[in-house]
Amino acid sequence: MRIFVIGSGRMANALAPALLRGGHKITGVYSRNAKSGPSLARYLGCDFSSTLVIPKNTDLILLTVHDDATPILAKSLRSAKSIIVHTSGTVDLFALGRKNKGGVFYPLDTMNGKRNMNFQDIPICVEATEEKTLATLLALANTISSEVYVMDSKTRMAVHAAAVFTNNFTNHLLGMAAAITNQVGVPFNILKKLAHTTIKNAFAGNPVEVQTGPAKRGDQKTIKKHLDFLAKNPEAVKLYATLTRSIAAVHKNKPGKG
Amino acid sequence: MRIFVIGSGRMANALAPALLRGGHKITGVYSRNAKSGPSLARYLGCDFSSTLVIPKNTDLILLTVHDDATPILAKSLRSAKSIIVHTSGTVDLFALGRKNKGGVFYPLDTMNGKRNMNFQDIPICVEATEEKTLATLLALANTISSEVYVMDSKTRMAVHAAAVFTNNFTNHLLGMAAAITNQVGVPFNILKKLAHTTIKNAFAGNPVEVQTGPAKRGDQKTIKKHLDFLAKNPEAVKLYATLTRSIAAVHKNKPGKG
Repeated sequence: MRIFVIGSGRMANALAPALLRGGHKITGVYSRNAKSGPSLARYLGCDFSSTLVIPKNTDLILLTVHDDATPILAKSLRSAKSIIVHTSGTVDLFALGRKNKGGVFYPLDTMNGKRNMNFQDIPICVEATEEKTLATLLALANTISSEVYVMDSKTRMAVHAAAVFTNNFTNHLLGMAAAITNQVGVPFNILKKLAHTTIKNAFAGNPVEVQTGPAKRGDQKTIKKHLDFLAKNPEAVKLYATLTRSIAAVHKNKPGKG
Repeated sequence: MRIFVIGSGRMANALAPALLRGGHKITGVYSRNAKSGPSLARYLGCDFSSTLVIPKNTDLILLTVHDDATPILAKSLRSAKSIIVHTSGTVDLFALGRKNKGGVFYPLDTMNGKRNMNFQDIPICVEATEEKTLATLLALANTISSEVYVMDSKTRMAVHAAAVFTNNFTNHLLGMAAAITNQVGVPFNILKKLAHTTIKNAFAGNPVEVQTGPAKRGDQKTIKKHLDFLAKNPEAVKLYATLTRSIAAVHKNKPGKG
């Protein structure tokens, strides 16, 4: 396909090169960023533009801008003949204001903005205003990923909420763990193996069934030791207390090993 | 070394076979469990005993019992000539009631109780009452792992608290994520790649520096969408609110991309 890219942030920098490698042609990059925009266009071997003009030979416009900017840009592209897709986890398809040739192309992973990012095992959630566009987006997604899901906006938003638990919240807990190990002069890396085992075990079955630890087994003595140690770090104490209470609440009626 | 094993739970079932494969001899297993005790002894090719008698040819007694049982068993083993070590993350070395030939041998990973568990890249935290025993425990740890740390009881307890964040709390968040994906009929596995990327990125540097998401960037619109969707799951709402507030608190004075 011939794809025009709007935006030059992390999503554009990861996704556009992957589409190029997938055999597609990038017809141009538009961005308000006078540095990252031209840089990305140069990398993609296409024109950069600081005014929004869609080249005639464009099949699809890829909107990779911030959530709030999506409906505004979509409005100014109302007369465009190409398909328009956005790449957000939370913005409704409806925000594009289209009855046809509108869609969503949402890759479910954290974008680090690296241009060599491989999308092969990254789930891509697609949605479209009508069957024909959906078929086009499915075909497009399959050129860069082997994990393609058709998903409506409400479901995608739920998956995005689950992704916040999986990525943002988990990363924050690891930040607390790093603060604790740093405090006692132990390299954070000591927890690396445990973190990987945790993910492996959770996805081997149901995470609820592999829950262990003092909160699960109601081990108040250990919980008190931890809270006493954490006392100088109020954020760690709050998280520890909330998560301990939550684990106890979820598991209170489930007997089993701790 | 010639090692006597006390207990037949997950720790004993993972660690004793690894020590056997590491070239050590297991002189016997004592356990109050009439099923798992004999089963483990059979696997290790040694005697099982339901009364606590330490064979004469024992260099080291491996205590793998519950935290509360450790000082009680240590007391009844006061006259034992062998080294005694416990394997807990939170029990003080002091609990063994020994001035010498006492130690801690704490593998930092979740024990699934599988007898083929490879300890090579699992950190082992060792501590001892005196230099000679410490040297013995370091040598022992090195026969099964390439990641050996010397650590006092206070530091080990801090690392254990960090491990609770890394394993127990993270797993609980993944349980919430699974509940959300199940609710909308999407396979939990859609989050697997993201979870692995999260761990990889967090340990590539400092997790605080790679934090992203609506809480970090103060995106109230997305936060509200998520909370509205989660409304039917009060535990998820409480966790979402606490973690969002905590991320905002930690990052409030740090500018940067969301």
